[in-house]
Amino acid sequence: MISIAILGHGVVGSGVAEIVLHNQEGVAAKAGDAVQIKRILDLRTFPELPYAHLFTTDFQDILQDEEIRIVVETMGGLHPAYDFVKASLLAGKSVVTSNKELVAAKGDELLAIARENNLNFLFEASVGGGIPILRPLDQCLAANRVLEIAGILNGTTNFMLTKMIQDNMSFADALSLAQQLGYAERDPSADIEGHDACRKICILASLAFGKHVLPEQVHTEGITAVSLTDVQYAAACGGAIKLIGRAVKDETGRLFCQVAPMVVPADSLLAGVNDVFNGIMVRGDSVGDVVFVGRGAGKLPTASAVVADVIDEIRHMAVRKPLFWGPGEEGYVADYRQAAYARLLRFTCEKDAQALVQVGQVFGDVRVLSIPGAPEAELAFIAPALTEEALEAKLASLTGMTLVSGLRMYSA
Amino acid sequence: MISIAILGHGVVGSGVAEIVLHNQEGVAAKAGDAVQIKRILDLRTFPELPYAHLFTTDFQDILQDEEIRIVVETMGGLHPAYDFVKASLLAGKSVVTSNKELVAAKGDELLAIARENNLNFLFEASVGGGIPILRPLDQCLAANRVLEIAGILNGTTNFMLTKMIQDNMSFADALSLAQQLGYAERDPSADIEGHDACRKICILASLAFGKHVLPEQVHTEGITAVSLTDVQYAAACGGAIKLIGRAVKDETGRLFCQVAPMVVPADSLLAGVNDVFNGIMVRGDSVGDVVFVGRGAGKLPTASAVVADVIDEIRHMAVRKPLFWGPGEEGYVADYRQAAYARLLRFTCEKDAQALVQVGQVFGDVRVLSIPGAPEAELAFIAPALTEEALEAKLASLTGMTLVSGLRMYSA
Repeated sequence: MISIAILGHGVVGSGVAEIVLHNQEGVAAKAGDAVQIKRILDLRTFPELPYAHLFTTDFQDILQDEEIRIVVETMGGLHPAYDFVKASLLAGKSVVTSNKELVAAKGDELLAIARENNLNFLFEASVGGGIPILRPLDQCLAANRVLEIAGILNGTTNFMLTKMIQDNMSFADALSLAQQLGYAERDPSADIEGHDACRKICILASLAFGKHVLPEQVHTEGITAVSLTDVQYAAACGGAIKLIGRAVKDETGRLFCQVAPMVVPADSLLAGVNDVFNGIMVRGDSVGDVVFVGRGAGKLPTASAVVADVIDEIRHMAVRKPLFWGPGEEGYVADYRQAAYARLLRFTCEKDAQALVQVGQVFGDVRVLSIPGAPEAELAFIAPALTEEALEAKLASLTGMTLVSGLRMYSA
Repeated sequence: MISIAILGHGVVGSGVAEIVLHNQEGVAAKAGDAVQIKRILDLRTFPELPYAHLFTTDFQDILQDEEIRIVVETMGGLHPAYDFVKASLLAGKSVVTSNKELVAAKGDELLAIARENNLNFLFEASVGGGIPILRPLDQCLAANRVLEIAGILNGTTNFMLTKMIQDNMSFADALSLAQQLGYAERDPSADIEGHDACRKICILASLAFGKHVLPEQVHTEGITAVSLTDVQYAAACGGAIKLIGRAVKDETGRLFCQVAPMVVPADSLLAGVNDVFNGIMVRGDSVGDVVFVGRGAGKLPTASAVVADVIDEIRHMAVRKPLFWGPGEEGYVADYRQAAYARLLRFTCEKDAQALVQVGQVFGDVRVLSIPGAPEAELAFIAPALTEEALEAKLASLTGMTLVSGLRMYSA
């Protein structure tokens, strides 16, 4: 019998309790030992629950209980989660968490503490909800050098973009529908401004490339500036706009890492990942492209990943997982302004022969796009790959043209 | 330093040698120890290779070498692969294989021998080439009851179907192109008659549901009867024909397992898996649908999965993997004729009002399909879900209508 504690009885924490309690036999069979939830930390009480007697508001009840071998942290946020997780590890308890903010900010430190104490710090649920991604990335792809990771890492924004693409819904309407359906929080900024996706690409990049990538090192653009017109132009060039978190090593070894809405070509596997689904593409030098798709959030999907980590920890109580990365460093992530992207550029301007001549002179060969009902004074085209700096110089040299939007084109 | 041996220096075996030799530092870093290929078994000699001195034609050189801890079997076929693998396990060597025929036929027995001898028998590469699927299925989804697995498990037939769908190529031309490109063997029957996909769904079903499923228990139809006309009718109803291997538990606990070309709806993630890619959907009771996509075959993708297993075995030399299933039994797989599927039925008949009345009387509400250029005397429609037996009874009751094809509709 292995005793565990759960920190935080919110959506994920209550899901963990539900799976462990309702599926006791299955979990015991898989883990090779019975799992008992001994304590649940929450400031609230839940007198109606059959396991109401397990609740405590005092973390010391868990920390000082030597029977508790595994602490499951599902509180979210940095504090007090960080303090509780660190204290648990220092007290000899392995930790399983779904908290992406914590892992993205403090993963290297907590992994090092776990290693020093011969324990495990596991966080499969922190990226892609229930999709198995971190363990396959670390373990099954051990024989590959990872060249790139690119993913749709946030289900809320993917739902909104899907509604914009498929139902011609405006950004505001899509957001309000996402809120009605419980996919978006009342304050949706972490989703729509890209911070959530940023944390996840930090975790993936840290694991794939071996050093901690901090969220503040990752240039992050959300989808708040994406309009229905952009969506239509993307369709006109055979693509779909997706919020992409991307970490890629170029030929010279520079690591580029960013989050931005990008136009994904229709024949890419990521283009077909719709609604609240997440999709993560890993490119290895031997295996080529492998894509993992599934629901990236939600109570039971995420909780099932947490429980799988708990089971894995119990199965291998004495064995340290290889999952690890070292501390980051300044300059480890290259300046995003040096990454070259083709762009879908949209301008307000006179759409006459002179404008096209000017565009040709400045950008070379471009592919001009048209959509039904476009305003007369609008010109949209795909410009060839340019770094941010080169693009800015070219934009500055244009006369009589005002840039409206400039989405990156994702290309493999 | 860990010594390994490779049985068979064909496509996969030479790929394993290539990855281990060209990527020695990376493999050693991941495995925590250096890996040395000590012997390679092949009847041929390869004097031009820098490692020509490692070759032997005598399996005893490997079996009796106590330094060799891991045997990598990439010969394919049942014999002598089975005999060599069994002997290796009995001699105290863990085995890693890419041989789906072996695992599908003898997996339960070899897993049991490995367990008795406190060794591992690993075969991630036997399904989905380089796609991590068996380990995620076993480990990350430990907290889920698996309800269904459905996948595009054979890259050759998926390539051919993609050419038929996208380029209007005939079956014969698509096959000949696949052979030219090296995707299909000169004798393509294992691919196009579904046997390869059958072996893979056997392995997936055995692992997911806990008892061995033998290929002869799985009703298997290939794609040899799929015509361009079927492809066009599938498109007319918004779907794409894919060769699907499927294992599903129904509400009463019966396990259905079969391989057949099915019409997959366009909004399914599997519908977008094209060319030589494989795609495998796993449905768990907590996580929902998770899909894994990647190249399902090829030298380096498959070899990278083998090497990942070798690395994993070295990392955890002393630990037995949980990967396991028990022996199968007669009647474990339910009669496929009891599984109900909606069908895309195509008949030669007079297409008059009377025919439609008859169809309505026999099948109830159907959705009649039309394609440009269809012959006058052809009627195609989607009939509601029926078991094989019920369908046969209905077909027998029709007068003046000859069935041309009857593809199953895949529905989740």
